[in-house]
Amino acid sequence: VTAPAVILSYPQIGENIGAAARAMKNFGLTELRLIAPQCRWPNERAKALAAGAGDILEAARVYSDVRAALSDIRLVLATTARDRDVVREILTPQAAAQRLRAVSREGVTSAILFGGERAGLTNDELSLAEAVITIPTAEFSSLNLGQAVLLIGYEWLKAADATPASRTRKTIAVPATRQELVDMFDHLERELDAGGFFFPAAKKETMVRNIRAMILRAGLSDQETRTIRGMIVALVKNKYRGENKA
Amino acid sequence: VTAPAVILSYPQIGENIGAAARAMKNFGLTELRLIAPQCRWPNERAKALAAGAGDILEAARVYSDVRAALSDIRLVLATTARDRDVVREILTPQAAAQRLRAVSREGVTSAILFGGERAGLTNDELSLAEAVITIPTAEFSSLNLGQAVLLIGYEWLKAADATPASRTRKTIAVPATRQELVDMFDHLERELDAGGFFFPAAKKETMVRNIRAMILRAGLSDQETRTIRGMIVALVKNKYRGENKA
Repeated sequence: VTAPAVILSYPQIGENIGAAARAMKNFGLTELRLIAPQCRWPNERAKALAAGAGDILEAARVYSDVRAALSDIRLVLATTARDRDVVREILTPQAAAQRLRAVSREGVTSAILFGGERAGLTNDELSLAEAVITIPTAEFSSLNLGQAVLLIGYEWLKAADATPASRTRKTIAVPATRQELVDMFDHLERELDAGGFFFPAAKKETMVRNIRAMILRAGLSDQETRTIRGMIVALVKNKYRGENKA
Repeated sequence: VTAPAVILSYPQIGENIGAAARAMKNFGLTELRLIAPQCRWPNERAKALAAGAGDILEAARVYSDVRAALSDIRLVLATTARDRDVVREILTPQAAAQRLRAVSREGVTSAILFGGERAGLTNDELSLAEAVITIPTAEFSSLNLGQAVLLIGYEWLKAADATPASRTRKTIAVPATRQELVDMFDHLERELDAGGFFFPAAKKETMVRNIRAMILRAGLSDQETRTIRGMIVALVKNKYRGENKA
């Protein structure tokens, strides 16, 4: 995989460069290029904000203009919030990440171009990109450079992430067998019956069905069925002593 | 739509609360709740970082503990990076956002719970949540509170965002008609022929096909076909003068 380079054009604020590096590292992007940084470089505030991503800052290469920074890149996507009067494809971050993944798998070099804090990318810079990426926002739209890199990086990782949408810790959660559940149901229903819970008797069947559905919805593990049985034992404890006496 | 509340538990750093508010507003979340902020509150640094989202900070309610903050909430999702020894459903941010959208559409109150900067959520706080959200990251995982709110907020907006994955500015891009394209092809091929481009002649048909495919791939607008014809005229300009003289 040839991961895309992150290119910051005329970045002005050291903190944002550091935040960008930190964001990159969280999502598996490592190559940072800077076009004519407008702050002192190397930059102490950038180092502080990068936290554990100082290695990305140290390896960052500095270029004098966009043509030099892009010379070896074959697919360039540019981020922009502003509308431009050019017919160019506009991608969501997700679609952009998928396209970058596709070329990366083939070993093709790619880059994501981010403009400076104040003015964004120039029209000349944009004219070298195949497509632009626009991050969807509400009407209020105010994302800084570090946040933009974070969101694009997140989509880059997501595009190859196989984490299931929903899961339960498998090592701990061994779902209960039907036998364990049925034994627990029997235990619970017997004690509920003894406590006069099923009233009127004609409703018992429906009540049992509802209780079982409610319990099954929780997706209990085998350990949890044992816990519940222990709870039932604790709840009825000493309750029959009086009866024996009587 | 009853948008979920963002609840920050024991936040320590004013800047992060401000960044969270700004992130929220970008993605259409407005209700901020704070559980026992550990910094001075209201907080000047929070206001500075919130930028245009000061209204969210001003409307933020402060609670003394998690039970009070959650009392009217019906679906609680908690963000956590740490592994816990409890059988609980783990959602990706995207799956969480879809679930929140689903209950929101039914007017059901919901909340996303974020832990403090240093220690995250306590086990007691987690025990009140239906499921946890874990943000996928690379091996290096270091997201601050503001970044976590940003990513979850982004997924919240995306879950209802109808922006097509790829599009072209419609107002400007009226795709060229076949007639405009064919006229342009004729014009180009005539001039290429005149310049001796199609050599050897036996290859002409293949060469023409390749050129047309390359041009069609660009998805030209009607204006662009006219631009290209103007370019051809400019390229051959004065070229025939010599011939006329000769």
